[in-house]
Amino acid sequence: MECQDYGLTRNTERDNLNLNPLQRGGMLPQEAKKALLEYADGYSVCDYCAGRLDQIPTPSITGFLEDLAQFINVDEVRTTHGARESKFAVMHALCEPGDTIIVDGNAHYTTHLAAERNGIKMIEVPNNEHPEYAITPESYKETLENAIDNKIDLKLALLTHVDGNYGNLTDAKKIGEIAHKAGIPIILNCAYSMGRLPIDAKELNMDFVVGSGHKSLAASGPIGVLGMKEEYVDTILRHSKRHGVKEVEMLGCTSRGAPIATLMASLPHVKDRVKHWDEEVRKTINFVRQMEEIEGVKQVGKRPKEHDLTRFETPIFDKIAENHTRRGFFLYEELKKRNIVGIKRGQTKWFKCSVYGFSEEQVNYIANSFKEIVDKYME
Amino acid sequence: MECQDYGLTRNTERDNLNLNPLQRGGMLPQEAKKALLEYADGYSVCDYCAGRLDQIPTPSITGFLEDLAQFINVDEVRTTHGARESKFAVMHALCEPGDTIIVDGNAHYTTHLAAERNGIKMIEVPNNEHPEYAITPESYKETLENAIDNKIDLKLALLTHVDGNYGNLTDAKKIGEIAHKAGIPIILNCAYSMGRLPIDAKELNMDFVVGSGHKSLAASGPIGVLGMKEEYVDTILRHSKRHGVKEVEMLGCTSRGAPIATLMASLPHVKDRVKHWDEEVRKTINFVRQMEEIEGVKQVGKRPKEHDLTRFETPIFDKIAENHTRRGFFLYEELKKRNIVGIKRGQTKWFKCSVYGFSEEQVNYIANSFKEIVDKYME
Repeated sequence: MECQDYGLTRNTERDNLNLNPLQRGGMLPQEAKKALLEYADGYSVCDYCAGRLDQIPTPSITGFLEDLAQFINVDEVRTTHGARESKFAVMHALCEPGDTIIVDGNAHYTTHLAAERNGIKMIEVPNNEHPEYAITPESYKETLENAIDNKIDLKLALLTHVDGNYGNLTDAKKIGEIAHKAGIPIILNCAYSMGRLPIDAKELNMDFVVGSGHKSLAASGPIGVLGMKEEYVDTILRHSKRHGVKEVEMLGCTSRGAPIATLMASLPHVKDRVKHWDEEVRKTINFVRQMEEIEGVKQVGKRPKEHDLTRFETPIFDKIAENHTRRGFFLYEELKKRNIVGIKRGQTKWFKCSVYGFSEEQVNYIANSFKEIVDKYME
Repeated sequence: MECQDYGLTRNTERDNLNLNPLQRGGMLPQEAKKALLEYADGYSVCDYCAGRLDQIPTPSITGFLEDLAQFINVDEVRTTHGARESKFAVMHALCEPGDTIIVDGNAHYTTHLAAERNGIKMIEVPNNEHPEYAITPESYKETLENAIDNKIDLKLALLTHVDGNYGNLTDAKKIGEIAHKAGIPIILNCAYSMGRLPIDAKELNMDFVVGSGHKSLAASGPIGVLGMKEEYVDTILRHSKRHGVKEVEMLGCTSRGAPIATLMASLPHVKDRVKHWDEEVRKTINFVRQMEEIEGVKQVGKRPKEHDLTRFETPIFDKIAENHTRRGFFLYEELKKRNIVGIKRGQTKWFKCSVYGFSEEQVNYIANSFKEIVDKYME
């Protein structure tokens, strides 16, 4: 029995301007592609392992983790398989089934899944709804205090640094302080921030920060980051009773292969690019300004933008779709003709996109392409 | 602050004959290296995701999982981050903390870690000790029946198909039958077998089979396989209450990136190579015969070999080390001069190795190199 053809090429997404926010921060620089081929084979990083991934000297995973810890200002750091696996590990180590935690109402679905897999209940901090959908420190404080008033023993707090629906940057520093005043350890989910903008876990009053290599650290998936304060190291990284050197929550070792080689190779690039975050934000604000010149197009979420992930309400494209022979697919198809991809096929009422990493010229070209498509159908 | 130099090259292990059993089955064929570069970037396989990794049509993860399920004869299959993560997921779904399971005494440390992370107790089936270290169906049956006699409610059984210390192939079919007669679901850990030799989960009376892409399926790490019978699908792959489409034990999605692309690209190669397993075994038996021509060298574990992973007792190398200026390092260094790597530095009393995938000529060259080294020092 022959294998099917799996269509293992990705030209469309690699060769065109890809606006999918999920794909903008995980693109590999040249040096990471080189590392990927060096470490392509199976257990490639394990040649010189003496029992612990984080202590491998060749390639220097030890040296890398020191640099990474310093980069995000945590006492200890490990790689995991992704931000979700980092969140699961912290919840698993700190909570029992039936416990309750507090999370923001814009949390990623994987936060909910990590809690559900652990049998943990969640109390949610509501956002302030349309059009901002913001999580405010005041609302976080109120929800947290209500829970305490209701004698709920909160074991953990979680805040999404930048959410994946609106690209709202939260005030981690204030919310971290609120959690600490209540004596509750807090995780910051930095899947959309670590590697894009500077993260200083201690400055942000965070006990844990989790990041995503494939989302925002220019690494091949799947790989995540889990940074923590010294006081939690013994709990989160507790050693096996039987295999003393092995860390139980890591199942011994986590990212044993190619993705960690790319994360390592990309760190110098990432350390450099976060210094230019203000330019990325300016580019996004400029993009929003141009997009909003189109009739009825409106950026939702906090204004002005503080992150590249942007959500637009686009009733005009929905209107065009009504009368178009290709219905909702017309937008995807018109964009693709212009070498732009990454807006979901069929979506016209609203969409999320990002111009992270594009040049000013590319940003202008993208905005003009949207305008051109409107002009084509609305004149 | 500059990043350290992580030494991200792997020439030594890529350009020489690598005897490390961990590295033999994870080497990528050309087509997988191509896929690795196509899917190098971050969340590369997620361009056309509608919410579930296993249902992605482009590349056809759906088609791949169908082929994979057929290849190992299971009703349903998922990719995970590795064999250990597959075992953890099954234990997590089927057991509560405090439960007891039965495992073979040659189980990999990750089986112990998966149980420990789940708060599960283990009863262990002893092997028959030196020199075979074999796990027999009789001993499995006896341990299992003793546990039942002692009113221990065994929730799960686990058998290591081929262990990582002696390369002993166990009689999965008989032990599967023993577990089933006792009404206990059983997992077969195929980390060292799936992708090297043919696996037919139903023929082997297994409810679950777990595999390792990086260890034996010619894939970049980390990626694992979790195959299961229909009757366990609803439990192991239960859906989230809040995010109906997402599978809780998978935390939504698992291998979102480059490793799954390599696993997919390698499947035709792997399907073909398992057909030649008998040749690999013959090569190993020939290698053992040549190695045992060296004074005092003795293969331990079951005889004749039924798997490429081979453990030798090598007192002669230990004796040479005693008087050598480089002590135990001499063997590693002498082998490296002959373009052979993969025996741990400093090890001389015994070692594990594998000639999987080498040509007859290479096998002879390797055996002759060991002889040459002995001759150099013992004449």
